[in-house]
Amino acid sequence: LPDEIRRRHGADSLGAVARAYEEFCSRVIDIVAPLTPVVKPQSAFFEACGPEGMTALQRVLTKARQRGLITILDGKRNDIASTASAYADASLDGTRLADRRHPVWDADALTVNPYLGRDAIEPFLESARRSGRGIFVLVRTSNPGAGQFQDLLCDGRPVYVHVAEAVGQWSRENLGQCGLSDVGAVVGGQGVRGQGSGVGVLEHLRKLISEVLFLVPGFGSQGGAAQDVAAAFRDDGLGAIINSSRGIIFSFKPSDPKWELAVEAAGRETIASLARSTPMKRLLSGEEVSG
Amino acid sequence: LPDEIRRRHGADSLGAVARAYEEFCSRVIDIVAPLTPVVKPQSAFFEACGPEGMTALQRVLTKARQRGLITILDGKRNDIASTASAYADASLDGTRLADRRHPVWDADALTVNPYLGRDAIEPFLESARRSGRGIFVLVRTSNPGAGQFQDLLCDGRPVYVHVAEAVGQWSRENLGQCGLSDVGAVVGGQGVRGQGSGVGVLEHLRKLISEVLFLVPGFGSQGGAAQDVAAAFRDDGLGAIINSSRGIIFSFKPSDPKWELAVEAAGRETIASLARSTPMKRLLSGEEVSG
Repeated sequence: LPDEIRRRHGADSLGAVARAYEEFCSRVIDIVAPLTPVVKPQSAFFEACGPEGMTALQRVLTKARQRGLITILDGKRNDIASTASAYADASLDGTRLADRRHPVWDADALTVNPYLGRDAIEPFLESARRSGRGIFVLVRTSNPGAGQFQDLLCDGRPVYVHVAEAVGQWSRENLGQCGLSDVGAVVGGQGVRGQGSGVGVLEHLRKLISEVLFLVPGFGSQGGAAQDVAAAFRDDGLGAIINSSRGIIFSFKPSDPKWELAVEAAGRETIASLARSTPMKRLLSGEEVSG
Repeated sequence: LPDEIRRRHGADSLGAVARAYEEFCSRVIDIVAPLTPVVKPQSAFFEACGPEGMTALQRVLTKARQRGLITILDGKRNDIASTASAYADASLDGTRLADRRHPVWDADALTVNPYLGRDAIEPFLESARRSGRGIFVLVRTSNPGAGQFQDLLCDGRPVYVHVAEAVGQWSRENLGQCGLSDVGAVVGGQGVRGQGSGVGVLEHLRKLISEVLFLVPGFGSQGGAAQDVAAAFRDDGLGAIINSSRGIIFSFKPSDPKWELAVEAAGRETIASLARSTPMKRLLSGEEVSG
């Protein structure tokens, strides 16, 4: 956090830190709202401040919506049956009391873990589809140990390809006019290579599930570079959300009173580097695209 | 919820429902505290009430601890690196501000999803081991679609067996004097049969990872019966936590003013049926056991 925000709120209680997070995120949103279509708050850091953190999360999401941003709540939730519905409705369609839906986190999309299988994804899909929202299913993550289970070979294909195929199937149930669906896939962009084939995971999955929107995390900080994520896009320049979190919100020195300028510069530089190296350049240069 | 609680708090706002949950759970805890060693609050239903729900969750966990119960927070959390640490510390060791740990949910254990691999489990293990707490890793769940990814065969063994083997390895890093570890496994007790072998999953996993404590959910309501879960126990009667949630908290008619008697009866009946059909009977009958 910038020193000025830390000083104003203090850092000696969970509530103080929650309020500092809220101010910081709100000011970052003001900076990035003209630059980016989407923000992805990470639930964990708000939860770590307890109920007051959850209030801050709620306000940050509200603020982002007010600024016209699409919001992805990164919660990686998963459970079965009515429990999954409770998570899903809290994040998406709202909790139902009597005959009314009460918005809780009210995000446009939620990240979801697939380990429990389709019937555990179903309540998330239902909540998303009732309310015109979406989910992003973890397919292949880019952490060093991701391959331990995700790369196990079953019938000649790694587990994550089985998950990707399922995500492709779920997404074809509800394609939009743009040819993309309300079920996206979280796919790491860095250092992930397919088993055996030598083809990059992003490239492979982009061909396999062309109707699935990819959420590619870790750009800028986890070592991701623009050329690494180029394969996440379709030829028309659509199909991927490249997420830079730490690359933006850790872009300044805490002591810098002009930290907001650093955040803005980091945002602009991220966009420029993506534009140089990916099919996004066709969009940014004004070439016509479908969808 | 019992009508009396619903009437007192109302059900027209998320805050009202959160307060009703808190009263209900607190009174259930008073009933079951003399009967059971462990309670497992489900985070989702509190989250569905927003920040006020999280306050209720916090109070319910505090109440359970005050009554001497071990608490398992069922959050099925998962993420990588510092994000995983934030979830872990919120649930277990407390969020660190400056040099002090601030308890947030302050549970004795947390359920965790393994899809992201060991390095994503590591922060949960660290938080648990710093504070003498534990985690339960999802291994094989009992929902109808659980097999979609968990039963995929890799090297002749289903994915969930690969996860179980990893859990066994992690647990052997920190065995207690009782021969059990701080890393448990969530294993469904009903309708789950191993691939090919015909041996029940619980029976198979009990032999494979004998040092791992099993958390077996869904007893009573998801169709589980005492004979189905008997295999979760070691021969000495230890090694499993059989969890009945709906079997207890949905055991009464909402209109019954004496609903607490039904909760107590359901708790006693659960224990009695487990005692009749499982190695627990050796413990309950006073036979000496090791550990």
